[in-house]
Amino acid sequence: MTMRRTEKEGPKMTNERQNMTLERLNKIVDSVYTQLNDGDIPSMNLPLRSKNNIEFDPRHNVWKYGDLQTNRNCKTVKGAMMMLRTLHMIDFIDTMIDSNRSSTLREMYYISEGWGYGKFNSQDESNMLAEDLEITSNCMREDFKLRPEEDGARVIGDITITATNRKGVKQTLNCRDDVPDTGYGIPFNVEKDKVALKPGTAKFIVAIETGGMFDRLVENGFDEKYNALLVHLKGQPARSTRRFIKRLNEELKLPVTVFTDGDPWSFRIFASVAYGAIKTAHISDYLATPTSQFIGITATDILNYKLPTDKLSDQDVSALKSELSDPRFKDQFWVSEIEAMLSMKKKAEQQALAKYGLDFVTDKYLPEKLTDLGIL
Amino acid sequence: MTMRRTEKEGPKMTNERQNMTLERLNKIVDSVYTQLNDGDIPSMNLPLRSKNNIEFDPRHNVWKYGDLQTNRNCKTVKGAMMMLRTLHMIDFIDTMIDSNRSSTLREMYYISEGWGYGKFNSQDESNMLAEDLEITSNCMREDFKLRPEEDGARVIGDITITATNRKGVKQTLNCRDDVPDTGYGIPFNVEKDKVALKPGTAKFIVAIETGGMFDRLVENGFDEKYNALLVHLKGQPARSTRRFIKRLNEELKLPVTVFTDGDPWSFRIFASVAYGAIKTAHISDYLATPTSQFIGITATDILNYKLPTDKLSDQDVSALKSELSDPRFKDQFWVSEIEAMLSMKKKAEQQALAKYGLDFVTDKYLPEKLTDLGIL
Repeated sequence: MTMRRTEKEGPKMTNERQNMTLERLNKIVDSVYTQLNDGDIPSMNLPLRSKNNIEFDPRHNVWKYGDLQTNRNCKTVKGAMMMLRTLHMIDFIDTMIDSNRSSTLREMYYISEGWGYGKFNSQDESNMLAEDLEITSNCMREDFKLRPEEDGARVIGDITITATNRKGVKQTLNCRDDVPDTGYGIPFNVEKDKVALKPGTAKFIVAIETGGMFDRLVENGFDEKYNALLVHLKGQPARSTRRFIKRLNEELKLPVTVFTDGDPWSFRIFASVAYGAIKTAHISDYLATPTSQFIGITATDILNYKLPTDKLSDQDVSALKSELSDPRFKDQFWVSEIEAMLSMKKKAEQQALAKYGLDFVTDKYLPEKLTDLGIL
Repeated sequence: MTMRRTEKEGPKMTNERQNMTLERLNKIVDSVYTQLNDGDIPSMNLPLRSKNNIEFDPRHNVWKYGDLQTNRNCKTVKGAMMMLRTLHMIDFIDTMIDSNRSSTLREMYYISEGWGYGKFNSQDESNMLAEDLEITSNCMREDFKLRPEEDGARVIGDITITATNRKGVKQTLNCRDDVPDTGYGIPFNVEKDKVALKPGTAKFIVAIETGGMFDRLVENGFDEKYNALLVHLKGQPARSTRRFIKRLNEELKLPVTVFTDGDPWSFRIFASVAYGAIKTAHISDYLATPTSQFIGITATDILNYKLPTDKLSDQDVSALKSELSDPRFKDQFWVSEIEAMLSMKKKAEQQALAKYGLDFVTDKYLPEKLTDLGIL
């Protein structure tokens, strides 16, 4: 592959974090080189990435990998192919860091078309390898300059973000005063070397599942009236959105509340913000905010507010049942809400609150829930 | 429903366009009132909104409704119910305009839960009625303050947008200098009374199907090097995105190019930008930019660049075949490209260009296509 640095690409990044990433990746390459040099068949160890090697860590309240390991070696053609891909990918990441570039996971997959023998058979394969490298190197995919397809999650409220833009220029924008009503688009890499956060009057975070409800709170001025920071989750949130929330919580000490629909999939959105997801168990420490509190629609709300509902589908029912055995939903609140939903056989969307007009959610529903939690 | 004006909601809008909307909606109500008063059974005429009443207007190169009409009246309970809903909806729109509010189509559906008898059975029903009102009143859904769920389309490049924000304050932002790398989020209402456009150095528009490719062009600085305005279509583009492109084309005289994947669905994305979509045939004049030019992946590109491909599915094949009888694809370029794709049985994504590295698309593919069209 060719990659040239032009005057458009901004200054070369040589900060600590990037050096550390390069060092750790090079260590992997060194180990393969040494093994080959010593006449050994190259191999590397990885944590086993299957469901039975994932544990809920009750001390930190997040998902983690267990101790099971798998060995990847070059004893078979398939294994050797995998090692070749690993080295190709490290080479590509190395070039990207060196030239201050980034690529989508989809581009990463297509880049391999130029490798001949190392070519991936599917994007799943290249995505997985990127995650393997995260685990082996103890770096993040964002350090590798790999990003998912566009996400579009947004934030509105009084905090100030200083981000290094594509030209290498630091740009400072207040998320209340300097953005249109569509908000500030959260970038794919929100690590400290790229994005600095400065507190404003925002006192807590409302992370919102749907764009319609995000726009409702924006239009109703909920952020300004209650000093809230509104973050749009956009369904199951991207890594960068979860990491952004985590940093806001840790560094600016903003309590996190999560406002979703009332159905089993939305409960999982909450759980992934609060406790981490199985797929990203190796970086739960970075992504999860265990003190997050749920202010989404519950079975109790459906009854109390007589909300318009839909029937639970068979998939909904089995998702709820499996949540009853999920350690993330083991406390009394969740057990009783999940059981209540199973017995009423109904779910409701957050926008169903519009039954009582466009102001009900900001005049009554949210203030009541936030007061109960001691946030207002 | 209750709707109060608070100090958060900004000044009441009383501009010309809103007065016109109110006037036209009131005319519909007046007509029903007069009929009732005269002892007649109320009825209203609407253009027939079915496929056999949609015509391609070769003079303007867009889709339009034909002359067939349907009569909606109160002779049946179902018909009377529909009339009741129409009046309820007009009342709701009236209140929104009066109090400078807006609502999502989803909220509009839930709002009807408070109407008792007039309640909609599904969101399709309420969406359809909003479109009927557009046709009857010759206004736009945006004038009614109804918006779809979040869209997230973005723009980057040197033009300047002055938009009235939620607080009623005019906010001026340059889409190159005043936005993060994620761009300026296109608002749901981009009409002249809300959004003013000021030219900069941008000389033409590249409307891009996927977020991954949008981000690639942004990272590679394509906008600055070639004075391009990059617009993210986000798949099949929302009305506001198409209207935004149309206004940029008409008012700032920017030629429009459309850069998509190479498959039948992407060809339709181009067609909806250029010629309008069947669903919005009544407002093609507002949304379509017939001079748009296609610079997406073609069958010829797949061959010439030896791009990584996927096999056409059965759905792909029948979509391509139906495009051969679609008047929007009647010219020689499209006929030969569609036939070539059918015979090679393959499609390709725009990100497949990454086979040749991350710069190929901006160093070679786009400059060549744009030079061929006389834009560069």
